[in-house]
Amino acid sequence: MVTDRPRLLLEQLGGLETNLHQQDFLLTWNHWTDELKAVLVVAEVLEELYRANVSTRVFESGLAVSNFRDKSTRTRFAFAGAANLLGLTVQELDESRSQIAHGETVRETANMISFLTEVIGIRDDIYLGEGHRYMASVAAAVEEGYEKGVLPQRPAVINLQCDLDHPTQTLSDLLHLQKTFGSLETLRGKKLAMTWAYSASYSKPLSVPQGIICLMTRFGMHVALAHPEGYDLQPEAIERAGQYAAESGGSFECLESMGEAFCDADIVYPKSWASCYTMENRTAALRNGDRAVLRKIEEAGLENNARFKDWECSKELMRMTREGQALYMHCLPADISGVSCERGEVAEDVFERYRLATYRQAAHKPFVIAAMMLLTRFEQPAELLRMLLARGESRRLM
Amino acid sequence: MVTDRPRLLLEQLGGLETNLHQQDFLLTWNHWTDELKAVLVVAEVLEELYRANVSTRVFESGLAVSNFRDKSTRTRFAFAGAANLLGLTVQELDESRSQIAHGETVRETANMISFLTEVIGIRDDIYLGEGHRYMASVAAAVEEGYEKGVLPQRPAVINLQCDLDHPTQTLSDLLHLQKTFGSLETLRGKKLAMTWAYSASYSKPLSVPQGIICLMTRFGMHVALAHPEGYDLQPEAIERAGQYAAESGGSFECLESMGEAFCDADIVYPKSWASCYTMENRTAALRNGDRAVLRKIEEAGLENNARFKDWECSKELMRMTREGQALYMHCLPADISGVSCERGEVAEDVFERYRLATYRQAAHKPFVIAAMMLLTRFEQPAELLRMLLARGESRRLM
Amino acid sequence: MVTDRPRLLLEQLGGLETNLHQQDFLLTWNHWTDELKAVLVVAEVLEELYRANVSTRVFESGLAVSNFRDKSTRTRFAFAGAANLLGLTVQELDESRSQIAHGETVRETANMISFLTEVIGIRDDIYLGEGHRYMASVAAAVEEGYEKGVLPQRPAVINLQCDLDHPTQTLSDLLHLQKTFGSLETLRGKKLAMTWAYSASYSKPLSVPQGIICLMTRFGMHVALAHPEGYDLQPEAIERAGQYAAESGGSFECLESMGEAFCDADIVYPKSWASCYTMENRTAALRNGDRAVLRKIEEAGLENNARFKDWECSKELMRMTREGQALYMHCLPADISGVSCERGEVAEDVFERYRLATYRQAAHKPFVIAAMMLLTRFEQPAELLRMLLARGESRRLM
Repeated sequence: MVTDRPRLLLEQLGGLETNLHQQDFLLTWNHWTDELKAVLVVAEVLEELYRANVSTRVFESGLAVSNFRDKSTRTRFAFAGAANLLGLTVQELDESRSQIAHGETVRETANMISFLTEVIGIRDDIYLGEGHRYMASVAAAVEEGYEKGVLPQRPAVINLQCDLDHPTQTLSDLLHLQKTFGSLETLRGKKLAMTWAYSASYSKPLSVPQGIICLMTRFGMHVALAHPEGYDLQPEAIERAGQYAAESGGSFECLESMGEAFCDADIVYPKSWASCYTMENRTAALRNGDRAVLRKIEEAGLENNARFKDWECSKELMRMTREGQALYMHCLPADISGVSCERGEVAEDVFERYRLATYRQAAHKPFVIAAMMLLTRFEQPAELLRMLLARGESRRLM
Repeated sequence: MVTDRPRLLLEQLGGLETNLHQQDFLLTWNHWTDELKAVLVVAEVLEELYRANVSTRVFESGLAVSNFRDKSTRTRFAFAGAANLLGLTVQELDESRSQIAHGETVRETANMISFLTEVIGIRDDIYLGEGHRYMASVAAAVEEGYEKGVLPQRPAVINLQCDLDHPTQTLSDLLHLQKTFGSLETLRGKKLAMTWAYSASYSKPLSVPQGIICLMTRFGMHVALAHPEGYDLQPEAIERAGQYAAESGGSFECLESMGEAFCDADIVYPKSWASCYTMENRTAALRNGDRAVLRKIEEAGLENNARFKDWECSKELMRMTREGQALYMHCLPADISGVSCERGEVAEDVFERYRLATYRQAAHKPFVIAAMMLLTRFEQPAELLRMLLARGESRRLM
Repeated sequence: MVTDRPRLLLEQLGGLETNLHQQDFLLTWNHWTDELKAVLVVAEVLEELYRANVSTRVFESGLAVSNFRDKSTRTRFAFAGAANLLGLTVQELDESRSQIAHGETVRETANMISFLTEVIGIRDDIYLGEGHRYMASVAAAVEEGYEKGVLPQRPAVINLQCDLDHPTQTLSDLLHLQKTFGSLETLRGKKLAMTWAYSASYSKPLSVPQGIICLMTRFGMHVALAHPEGYDLQPEAIERAGQYAAESGGSFECLESMGEAFCDADIVYPKSWASCYTMENRTAALRNGDRAVLRKIEEAGLENNARFKDWECSKELMRMTREGQALYMHCLPADISGVSCERGEVAEDVFERYRLATYRQAAHKPFVIAAMMLLTRFEQPAELLRMLLARGESRRLM
C-alpha cells in the first residue's frame, strides 16, 4: 500500500531549483545544493514505491552502460538494480584494465556504445588525476555526438567513483543520516568525524573522505577530519570543505588525532585511505608500467601505514562520542580486526554493534543511482513520478 | 492456442500441500513429496503457456543473481531463461573461483547483492562438504537481512548443483520420465539403474547420482545403484534412498556390476563420478592450495578409473534391459566413446539412438527452475497462474 | 512525433518478395536482393520509430544468445541494443577462445542454449575456412532441434562477422550510402573504391572487403577493388562480384593502385586486410597450436605490409576523387596516422573531416541487426510494424 509520504516528497521536489536534465552527475560540488536534495527526495520516493510494489518502469527499452575500470561488487549490483528498476538493461564495457585510454579512442568508443544508451556509469578510481578526467572526456564525446545528430539521445554520465569524489556513496550516506536522525534539518549542528583508520592496504582511493567532507559541510554539520601526518587529502578538497562550512553555518576542522575527532561526535566515519603522495607516485609508476617502482611504493606505503596501527575504531574511542552513542558509518567492506584481517579499521565488537546499520546505509545506493538516472534523463521528474503513482502498476503480480 | 492441460494441472496444484513461499530450494530431501510434485506441475504449466505464446511475466523489475563457483553452460542458460521467462534480469556475481569465502564476507556480500533481488541461484559443487554449507549460509544471511528490515524482500536461494544434490537436474529428469511414461503413477514399479560409467575425468561431483537415488525412490521406483569398488556415494545418501524406498513401496539395492543393474531395467542412467575418497582428499588439497598433492590425487584417480574401462553403456548392455528398450538418460555432456573421447561412458551407437531424447530431458530444466522461483516467491502460485491464463497476454506479438 | 516516412516505407516493404521467416542471415549472397532491401527498409522504420519514441518491443520474454569468438566492442553493443529494442535479453555464450569446437559438441551446445532463444548472433572471423562453417553447423543443429520437437521455436542464426562476409556491417554501410545520397536508386552508376590500406597489423579478416564488393555490385554501382600484389581476396568473391555487376548494370574491376581506384570515385573505403595466403597459413598454424610458426607468419606478414606504407588515404589522394568530395567510409576503428598509430590507413586530416560521418555510418548497425531479427522471426513483418505504429506505446514515459 502506498503511504502519503511519496506525495509529500513530490511537493518538496516541486520547490527545489534543479537543472539536471541532459546533464551528468560527476562531482557533488558541480551541483547546487537543491540538486543534491532532489537526488535524496527522488531516491526516497523510488524506495517507497518499490516497497509499496508500484512499478517504476519508465523505459520500455534502452541500455545502461557500465564501465568498471576497477573491481566492484557492491556498486556493480547497485547500478544493475537501479537500471533494472527503471526498465534499462545493463551492458558492460569491458576494457583491458591496465590501459589508460586516450583522446581519439575514448571519443570514438563513447559514441559507439551510446546509440541506444540512456546512461553510462563509470568507476575509475585507481589513478589520481585520471578518473575524473576520463569521465569528463566521455561526457564531452557524447555531448558532441548528440549535438551533431550522431546519437538519438544524450546519455548521462554517472560517476560510480573517481579519483576525486564518490557521489553515489556519499549521497547514500547522507540519505542514511537523514533517515537515522529524522531529516536534513536535524543534521544541522551535528558533529561528524571523518577519520583515517589503519589498514594493511596502501592504495585505497581518497574519494570517499573527500566526498564526505565536501558534502556534509554543505548541510550545516560540524565536520572534523583527522588523519596521521602524511595522509593529507587534496588541498582543493580541504579548501572547498572550509568554504562550504562557512556558507552553511557549519564548521570544518583538520585534526591529527582520532580521539579528538571522536570527542562528542554524533557520527563517526573511520576509514583508511592512501596518502596523496603515495597515490601520485603510484599513478606515475602505473603509467610507466614500472613494476619495481610500484613494489617499492607499496612497501613504503605499508610501512608508513604500520606506524599508525592504533588508529582503530575501538570501544574505548566510541565511548568518547556523544553519550557513547555516535552512529558508526562505513562504505564497506570494512577491515575488521580479527575478522577480515589481523588488525584493521574497526574492532570486532564495535562493527558487530553497527553491522546491520552499515547494511542499511548501503541499501540506499541503488535508489540514489536510480534517482540520478531519472533526474538527468527526464525534464519533469516530479510529473513523471506522479504519473507512476497514478498509473499504480504492480512491480510484481499479487 | 492454450489447451485444457494447464487448467487441469492447476486443479492438481490446488490439491497439493506445500509450504515453499519465502523458502529456499536446496535439497530435495528437505521438501515434502507434495512440494516436489508442485515443482513438476508448475514447470509443466509454464512450458504449456510458453508453447501457447502466453506471457508468464510476473515481475516488471527485479534481479536474479547467479553465482557460479564452477563452470557451467547448460545450467547458466537454463537459469537465465527461467529468470527472463518471469521478468527478472540476471546479474552474475563473479568471484575469484579458487577462494572459499568464509563467515563475515558471505553474510555481508549476500545482503549487498540482494537489495533488489528476488532469487539467488548458486552452483558450488567442487568441494565436498562446502557447497551446501555455502548455500545455507547465504540463505541464513538474507533471512537475517529480511527480518531486520535491511532487505525489502527475502530472496530465495536455489541450488544449481552442490556437493550433495542437484535438484534442478533431477527434477527435470523426473519430469522427463513422467512425460515419457505418461504420469508419475506409471513410474511406480519401474526399474531405474543408476550406474557408474567410465570416464577419463577423475573429479565429477557425486550430486547427480545421490540426487537421483534419493528422488526416484520416493516415487515407488525400483532403484538399482551400481558402481565399482571404491566409488561409494556418501552413506547418508544410501541410507536415505533405502528409507524412501521402504516408505514408497519401491526398492533400493546396491550392486557391483553394470550388467546386473541393467537387467530388466526400464530406465538406465550410466554416468561417471569420483570416489567419495578422492573428493575428500581433493577438498583438503584444494583448501591448502597444494598443487603437488592435487596432481597426485588426479593421477591416482585416473589410474583407478582406468581399471574400469569396461563400465561403458554398450549396445550389448542395453539389450539386457526390459525388451532391450530401456530409456537411456544423461545429464549431458556425456563422454561418448570415439566421439568426445577415446573411451567413455557410452558407446556411440547407443548415444545416437537416444541423442534427441537426452536433449528433451534437458529441455525441462529452464521451466523447473522457473517453477522453483515462482513457488518460493509467491504465496498463491495457483491463483497467480490462473491470473496469467486469464490475462492471456502474448509473449511475442503475432 | 511519428512522421509519414514509416508508413511509406511499410508500403515499400509490402512490394518486396522475401522468404526470411524461420531462416538465418549468414551471407548476403544467400539472399535475394529484395530480402536485402527489406533489411534496409525495416532498419529504417525501426530507427524512425525509435527517434519518435514509439516502443518496438515485440517480445515480452526471450533470449538473444551472443557468441563472440573474437574480441568485439562495437558489434557487441549493436547486438545488445538490437535485442533490447525488440524486448529480448542477451545471454553470452563464453567459450575458451582458442578452441575450435567440432561436430558433436556444437550440435549439442546449440540446442542446450536454445530452449528459450529467438536469435543466436555469432562472430567467428579468425580462421579462414572455419567461421562460416561453424555458423552453418549451429544453424543445422537448431533446425534439427526444432523439427524434432526439442526446441519450441527455431532460433535464427545471425552472422556478426565470419571469415567470408560481414553482412551487418555492409548492410549498415549500404544504409549509410542510401541516406547520404538520397536513395538506393541514386547509387546506381556511382563509383566506389574498395581499397587496401597500410596497417601495422597483419591479420585483419577479409570479410569486409569481400562483403562490400559482393554487395555494392548488386545495386548498379561501379566498384573498383585495389590492393598490392599478394593481397588478393578469395577467388569466389571476385567471381561473384563480377557476376553481380554484370547482372545489375554496374561494373567491377581489380586494380593495383590506390590512386587509380580513387580517380573520380564517389565513395572510398580504404581499409587494411591480410593476404589470403597469410590467413590460410595462420589458420593451419593456429589449429596446430604452433606458436613458432605463428610468430614467423606474423613477422613475414608485417614485413610484407611494410612494403606498402604509401597505401594511406591522404588529402592528395582524396583530391583525385569526384570533385575532391568523395565520401570516406570505414567500419572503425581506423588506424589513423599520428593518432592511433605512427603510420596507418588514413591521414589525420582526412579522418577528422569525415569522423562524424563514420560515426553515423556505424549508427545504423543496431537497427540493421534488429531488422534481421524481426524479419527472420516473424512471418508478417509489415503487419507487425503496422501494429506497433497503431499501438503507439512510448518507449520512454514523457
